[in-house]
Amino acid sequence: MTEDSPDDPNTASPGGQAMWGGRFATRPADLMQAINVSIGFDRRLADQDLAGSRAHAAMLRMQGVITSEDEAAIQGGLDAIATEIRDGTFPFRDEFEDIHMNVEARLRELIGPAAGRLHTARSRNDQVAVDFRLWVRDACDRTVAQLKRLQGALLDRAEQHADTLMPGFTHLQPAQPVTFGHHLMAYVEMFGRDAGRFADARRRMNECPLGAAALAGSPFPIDRDATARALGFDRPTANSLDSVSDRDFALEALAAATLCGVHLSRLAEELVIWTTPQFGFVRLSDAFSTGSSIMPQKRNPDAAELVRAKVGRLMGSFTQLTLVMKGLPLAYSKDMQEDKVPTFEAFDALELSLAAMTGMVLDLEPVAERMAAAAGAGFSTATDLADWLVRTLDMPFRDAHHVTGAAVKRAEALGVDLPGLPLAELQALSPGITPAVYDVLTPAASAASRTSFGGTAPDQVRRQAALWRERLS
Amino acid sequence: MTEDSPDDPNTASPGGQAMWGGRFATRPADLMQAINVSIGFDRRLADQDLAGSRAHAAMLRMQGVITSEDEAAIQGGLDAIATEIRDGTFPFRDEFEDIHMNVEARLRELIGPAAGRLHTARSRNDQVAVDFRLWVRDACDRTVAQLKRLQGALLDRAEQHADTLMPGFTHLQPAQPVTFGHHLMAYVEMFGRDAGRFADARRRMNECPLGAAALAGSPFPIDRDATARALGFDRPTANSLDSVSDRDFALEALAAATLCGVHLSRLAEELVIWTTPQFGFVRLSDAFSTGSSIMPQKRNPDAAELVRAKVGRLMGSFTQLTLVMKGLPLAYSKDMQEDKVPTFEAFDALELSLAAMTGMVLDLEPVAERMAAAAGAGFSTATDLADWLVRTLDMPFRDAHHVTGAAVKRAEALGVDLPGLPLAELQALSPGITPAVYDVLTPAASAASRTSFGGTAPDQVRRQAALWRERLS
Amino acid sequence: MTEDSPDDPNTASPGGQAMWGGRFATRPADLMQAINVSIGFDRRLADQDLAGSRAHAAMLRMQGVITSEDEAAIQGGLDAIATEIRDGTFPFRDEFEDIHMNVEARLRELIGPAAGRLHTARSRNDQVAVDFRLWVRDACDRTVAQLKRLQGALLDRAEQHADTLMPGFTHLQPAQPVTFGHHLMAYVEMFGRDAGRFADARRRMNECPLGAAALAGSPFPIDRDATARALGFDRPTANSLDSVSDRDFALEALAAATLCGVHLSRLAEELVIWTTPQFGFVRLSDAFSTGSSIMPQKRNPDAAELVRAKVGRLMGSFTQLTLVMKGLPLAYSKDMQEDKVPTFEAFDALELSLAAMTGMVLDLEPVAERMAAAAGAGFSTATDLADWLVRTLDMPFRDAHHVTGAAVKRAEALGVDLPGLPLAELQALSPGITPAVYDVLTPAASAASRTSFGGTAPDQVRRQAALWRERLS
Amino acid sequence: MTEDSPDDPNTASPGGQAMWGGRFATRPADLMQAINVSIGFDRRLADQDLAGSRAHAAMLRMQGVITSEDEAAIQGGLDAIATEIRDGTFPFRDEFEDIHMNVEARLRELIGPAAGRLHTARSRNDQVAVDFRLWVRDACDRTVAQLKRLQGALLDRAEQHADTLMPGFTHLQPAQPVTFGHHLMAYVEMFGRDAGRFADARRRMNECPLGAAALAGSPFPIDRDATARALGFDRPTANSLDSVSDRDFALEALAAATLCGVHLSRLAEELVIWTTPQFGFVRLSDAFSTGSSIMPQKRNPDAAELVRAKVGRLMGSFTQLTLVMKGLPLAYSKDMQEDKVPTFEAFDALELSLAAMTGMVLDLEPVAERMAAAAGAGFSTATDLADWLVRTLDMPFRDAHHVTGAAVKRAEALGVDLPGLPLAELQALSPGITPAVYDVLTPAASAASRTSFGGTAPDQVRRQAALWRERLS
Repeated sequence: MTEDSPDDPNTASPGGQAMWGGRFATRPADLMQAINVSIGFDRRLADQDLAGSRAHAAMLRMQGVITSEDEAAIQGGLDAIATEIRDGTFPFRDEFEDIHMNVEARLRELIGPAAGRLHTARSRNDQVAVDFRLWVRDACDRTVAQLKRLQGALLDRAEQHADTLMPGFTHLQPAQPVTFGHHLMAYVEMFGRDAGRFADARRRMNECPLGAAALAGSPFPIDRDATARALGFDRPTANSLDSVSDRDFALEALAAATLCGVHLSRLAEELVIWTTPQFGFVRLSDAFSTGSSIMPQKRNPDAAELVRAKVGRLMGSFTQLTLVMKGLPLAYSKDMQEDKVPTFEAFDALELSLAAMTGMVLDLEPVAERMAAAAGAGFSTATDLADWLVRTLDMPFRDAHHVTGAAVKRAEALGVDLPGLPLAELQALSPGITPAVYDVLTPAASAASRTSFGGTAPDQVRRQAALWRERLS
Repeated sequence: MTEDSPDDPNTASPGGQAMWGGRFATRPADLMQAINVSIGFDRRLADQDLAGSRAHAAMLRMQGVITSEDEAAIQGGLDAIATEIRDGTFPFRDEFEDIHMNVEARLRELIGPAAGRLHTARSRNDQVAVDFRLWVRDACDRTVAQLKRLQGALLDRAEQHADTLMPGFTHLQPAQPVTFGHHLMAYVEMFGRDAGRFADARRRMNECPLGAAALAGSPFPIDRDATARALGFDRPTANSLDSVSDRDFALEALAAATLCGVHLSRLAEELVIWTTPQFGFVRLSDAFSTGSSIMPQKRNPDAAELVRAKVGRLMGSFTQLTLVMKGLPLAYSKDMQEDKVPTFEAFDALELSLAAMTGMVLDLEPVAERMAAAAGAGFSTATDLADWLVRTLDMPFRDAHHVTGAAVKRAEALGVDLPGLPLAELQALSPGITPAVYDVLTPAASAASRTSFGGTAPDQVRRQAALWRERLS
Repeated sequence: MTEDSPDDPNTASPGGQAMWGGRFATRPADLMQAINVSIGFDRRLADQDLAGSRAHAAMLRMQGVITSEDEAAIQGGLDAIATEIRDGTFPFRDEFEDIHMNVEARLRELIGPAAGRLHTARSRNDQVAVDFRLWVRDACDRTVAQLKRLQGALLDRAEQHADTLMPGFTHLQPAQPVTFGHHLMAYVEMFGRDAGRFADARRRMNECPLGAAALAGSPFPIDRDATARALGFDRPTANSLDSVSDRDFALEALAAATLCGVHLSRLAEELVIWTTPQFGFVRLSDAFSTGSSIMPQKRNPDAAELVRAKVGRLMGSFTQLTLVMKGLPLAYSKDMQEDKVPTFEAFDALELSLAAMTGMVLDLEPVAERMAAAAGAGFSTATDLADWLVRTLDMPFRDAHHVTGAAVKRAEALGVDLPGLPLAELQALSPGITPAVYDVLTPAASAASRTSFGGTAPDQVRRQAALWRERLS
Repeated sequence: MTEDSPDDPNTASPGGQAMWGGRFATRPADLMQAINVSIGFDRRLADQDLAGSRAHAAMLRMQGVITSEDEAAIQGGLDAIATEIRDGTFPFRDEFEDIHMNVEARLRELIGPAAGRLHTARSRNDQVAVDFRLWVRDACDRTVAQLKRLQGALLDRAEQHADTLMPGFTHLQPAQPVTFGHHLMAYVEMFGRDAGRFADARRRMNECPLGAAALAGSPFPIDRDATARALGFDRPTANSLDSVSDRDFALEALAAATLCGVHLSRLAEELVIWTTPQFGFVRLSDAFSTGSSIMPQKRNPDAAELVRAKVGRLMGSFTQLTLVMKGLPLAYSKDMQEDKVPTFEAFDALELSLAAMTGMVLDLEPVAERMAAAAGAGFSTATDLADWLVRTLDMPFRDAHHVTGAAVKRAEALGVDLPGLPLAELQALSPGITPAVYDVLTPAASAASRTSFGGTAPDQVRRQAALWRERLS
């Protein structure tokens, strides 16, 4: 395999001068190693690398490419390596560049020449492709599980607060009363779409590149279906060039992560705003905020702010990998080694964010009276009056709008809110108005009236929550 | 509806001074209109807006919210407007801000007060959400159709060139022989994943936000299933706050477009490199390159370069919308008006790129002899020799590798290529080598031997092409 | 010149089928024109193109490359073209692709063969480089002027409100009293840095690429200093390959625009938060918000939201151009045609944002009593008590902190704020405390005490404002 | 100081359940610490933190805020800590969250209560602002030094190869002959602009935020000029709110890094293309490429590919920080803790890339004969013929262009290159042509003739190189 076997990449080229400056003072070879070596980060692929080798060895034996004895030796060696890694005794060595060569070199130390047969019909190109794909697949699975936990937490709180009134905002201005449960359910929808995206990405990436070898496939009688099955893939990939040059699976996962990060940032922003003394809609406990020994009222929503910021990492990682892949000719180019760090960092950030947000959702305490007061302020049921006029008096919508505007102006002049406006005043504007109108003018009535599918009426909220319960169970 | 009905947003505020400079010299109101008005770009939603209104009016009548007469008047007016738009006579007016108000205002001019009933149980917030979603859905459908055409073109050429040899590259260095058909099939895989992403996005977005009203749902007895059905949606959205504040559908489509753009940029880069005189692998006709009247050999691959660049627009649009949405509290904020231009521009760029790439794929002429020569140069079948030693002599892979290295050095010393190395020389390195070895040392034999699933062997290429034919038909 | 003179790029290639689908139904040539043509957007460079041609023609005559008669004809023709463009009668034609060929073709129509001499020692490559550089230079100049106007507006308001108290926030939680003037002055600093960045970018880009010709320079005895001088450049560029392949000037301007957009988004976010009824710190007039006919209290800060969103466009444009340029070999590649639209759109967005923000700053009315109340709430002067203990009683900072914490707890228990805590209570905690301590416990005293350079003390605010006045005048 | 002194942020909140899943299985407090703690990365600010504390302590003593004894104890303790850090014995502890609290806690352990006086008139908010600014300033300085080394390497090679011919490319198609030295000098210009951008960023950021305290400045009689001077700043920052909320300095440095990365990616792309066997323009030694034991001709330009990819990291970091800062209200928000990792990673990537590119520039060996052959192929001097006709026969440029086209067609028909076309053939096209024309038709003559300022004539190349030598010395 071509780039698989450089003859001692670490031979110093003579005469390196102190040209490079900084940390790379001595020799070109040091510099080359510094930029080339990946074991510092791709050691995170150790489990996946071992799994891939196990499946490959078993298949080679089944196909008669290697003997049972050789396979047994290889599997035994891989077991020993797995133990060493678990115990922290595995000797990760920079001179072997990456996780694949580290494992292979160690295997040779442990079992001798039989180790050399493991690399039959394989290349580092398809090896890294399968390792990294397995890692991203696991990350997607973990993320979906976390998303479901977060949705579960939101459902818990939404059901508790299906009736808790709060203002629905547009432009961060209170517009119409909604319930806190309804608001939380909006995020259940968003995180549900996120889970769907990770599931779709997972399904699409679930093809096994092993057997693509360096880039052209293999002349050995390998059974790619067998290795695919052994590693939990749906099927082998269908084109060997694509197999070793594709990083769509990481890009798609990072794009899904970015969208999820956008949702997290929106909820985090709301938590930051809601926990200000000015809003005072929500309290976070000490577990998710930091206080001050001399300003007892101060509760800095640090966790929410950090979650809000993490979307930067996610989008930054997607940007990074897109730039790396832009315009790369087929098949494998070394640029692609830059795929792992942004992906690892993005999923670390996402895992932390989802866990922290789940914690905050369970932790937060709504201040119902402040929410309710805000929900009722500012003629927030004016739309309900207009809708009542249309519904009850069959007024065209635009006319109803006009009458409502006049009613609000009158209420403002009298210094009362809409429910406090005397009937006579309303009838002066539109004689057909009856006392029944007052039934729609409180925030609670307003919310309760919005019974259209997906509306904020508490029954609707409960209905949607129940549907999601079922879907998540 | 709150932000739906500003009372004359164009009232000049008195005393605007020449403070703002530049184009906004006169009055704050001019400035506000300049930043606020969207009819310049959202007129592209006219068809979708009319479709949404038609479905809404029909549903209102079915539910008894408006009369048959009113509906007939409304539908007639909408027909008239559709005709005006088609004929270019519709009076788009800045003072009505956006497409929704332009249509509504015109409807009132055409049919009078009945127009006022159309806006019952609706808001600009759910209206724009449904319009834009319909547009993005159509864009996804068009893109999938274009991707299939591009895949079809690639299949045509791949089948023609299933046997045409070329070097398979790693690091842009020739590594192993492959066939041109195999190389093209790698892109069929990529564009197939792209089509899958657009299809998934389409499926996920295919829920109808109409009926969410301003943000809280509606107290009218609306039938959201009916409007969803009428507009080709699978179901109504399940949360009214989410419905008016979600732009996932655009973000997901832009992410899919970015990945597709990465693939296009890779193939475009290859075309640019292949058409250099140094490579000379491929010729593009005048239709897709520009020449020079005084340098007849010069064929600038302009179309390929422009396609390569378009990924910038796609990623730029995704970046733009992600930044817009980051940290936005629910529900609707005016920031979200900035969703359309990047999306329109991205799909314009993608449509053009896919069409141009399809054209180039059909147009390009491979220069088989140059490709073949390059495929055979540089001991490109050394791996085949090593594999033969493993397969035939049961040599451990790493040993076979060593023998091969020695053979190549010997050939280099003798100034011959591997197939030209005398048998005696080979046997001197490993006595078991037989004349049969020469069967694997030509590029054609090398390619033909890689018969593993998805490998470059011509039969494999034809098999994969046939599978795709079926899938696309 | 190679790519300067395609022989009729519009010749239809025969046999174009309806392959491309969509808008590009007919022929490859249509498709190629659709992707290739730039006159739709580069017509914005018309003034710059004419200026460049005028300078070039004058120099050619001075150097004896063309005759005075020819120059006179050329200049006359360019004058006529300028008039046509101003009057809207210039025939922009797609078949001439871009602004350069449109002007040249028209010049030939107007003055005949002498037009052919204008292109001596010039290429479209250096021509577009100079045109676009001039445009970006002008855009930087306009932006600096707008930034100064915005700073002027902020200074006006800061001086008016040098004493107006408001809470200083960390984590959006009130932390210490500051003045509104001080807060506004923070943005004067930011926009000052922005102006500095645009000025630096302008200085760095102010070298004239004219004379680089296609890429290698010219054999004609041209005087590049003369054309540079005539066009207001500091000097000619020093490397002809760099001259035609560099787009740093646009990238740097877009990066500066992005940072400016970040600042605008921060102030816009504050306006959105401050204008909520919950905060109620600031009122925006109708000129910069939209109301509702039926919810009179609702003032949607549309302009602020749109400004907040525009950073998306700016960052999106920077992203786009970075992707376009990534990995492009020298010198000119057609990819670079994608430099203009993102740059035009970014500066359009920035111009609008700066104008709107200037308008809002002049328009906004702080609600001093709400700000002051918030500034005094929540033991906001606890730090001042601690600092007083350190300063007056020479207590170590951490001990003072401890005493203050106890005082706050005591006040909380008694239901009073810090200034309301009886002296005896304080002395119980630290016997040395004297009545003088109350002088630092009001928000006004707190703010006034922070007299360190750049602190919030009103005198400091006025001093910094005065310094900026001087700098801006 | 508010967020400066949480009372034991690590108190476990009781009753944490196994809700969070994954790594955060136990308690909210673990989760909060996991997301909150920064000592894992901000320990890289240790030197800067000590420097800041030293300057602050000295100033406090000079101003009489602390005694000489206290200062001596503090400075001694800081010395001890510096030694511990250097020796690797400093106890970095997660429970103290960040570098500031770790140092402060350790100082208290070492010197007792006097440590408590160091924090007088200071906050973690201005402390981290000064630490990070110092770090970025150092990074800019290192980068400028590296850029100068890289420019020096390019100058060395450019002077060696001022006469070495190669094709100048447009669209990656050979267009006109240039010299290799000229091509390298184009990058000297680019990296020169990069150095200028880092220098400008450094100058703009060189203001000291120390003394801004939490956000409002300090009531202590501090001397901000003194600390600014002691830390090498030009002056103190002018607004305390801006001082603690500004991260422009990092954003601007990241933007400059991104542009530099674009340049590096362009040169890296050229190296990748030039080292293909098809181009064969340049050879890289083993020090900067990896070979293959069995394909001796294969030299994978790994280092160039990795450098090309690093622009992804740089742009990714800029994107990340822009998203973090977008829309953040003043002053400090915890989001801003996400500023460091992307900045550290970006400068690590940039340092490595610049060192590797410098190494490659010194290492590469041009293959002059292949470059020269390519420079002469394809009628590459056709433009020179046209220019000669204009210059010598006073033909209008467009006519000369026409004659040249005919000459090239004739040469093509005769199977010769332009210098091989008989004079009679040329005179048949334009009778005035004399034998002198042949002087301009060789690649060397073509390059030599382009003597305009910044042109490719070897003397121009040497002149520009000499100017840069002077500038860099």
